[in-house]
Amino acid sequence: MDDKNVKTQFGLTVRKLRLSKNISQEKFAEIVGLHRTYISEVERGTRNVTLINVVKIAKGLEVKTSELFCEMEKEI
Amino acid sequence: MDDKNVKTQFGLTVRKLRLSKNISQEKFAEIVGLHRTYISEVERGTRNVTLINVVKIAKGLEVKTSELFCEMEKEI
Repeated sequence: MDDKNVKTQFGLTVRKLRLSKNISQEKFAEIVGLHRTYISEVERGTRNVTLINVVKIAKGLEVKTSELFCEMEKEI
Repeated sequence: MDDKNVKTQFGLTVRKLRLSKNISQEKFAEIVGLHRTYISEVERGTRNVTLINVVKIAKGLEVKTSELFCEMEKEI
């Protein structure tokens, strides 16, 4: 999987899980303590998210970080 | 898990898996296409690794990214 695809797949997975919990980007940004624009960029696959924010995002989605990547790997 | 702990736990997990495969830092750096110093910093928990490098590191350890985090979560 090339770099662009990694970011895209991660973003799509975050979006899918967020929507499955009926949380808006604004609400989710508040939950994880990150800016809404940042969340939007992550979901659009334009951000190379750092480890600390990956863990924050997983926590905000109420899944383990491993589960977040399991979900992402299903799509590949 | 606070930010410092996330980096420390990730580094310890990478080191454990690398050593379980009997690969030196030099060899591992070569495999994943990253600098040896960077690998050393990751393992010492001083790097907030990006998503793309997390995936590269997992691939280099011949585990899925989800499995790498499963391993990390065992220690928490």
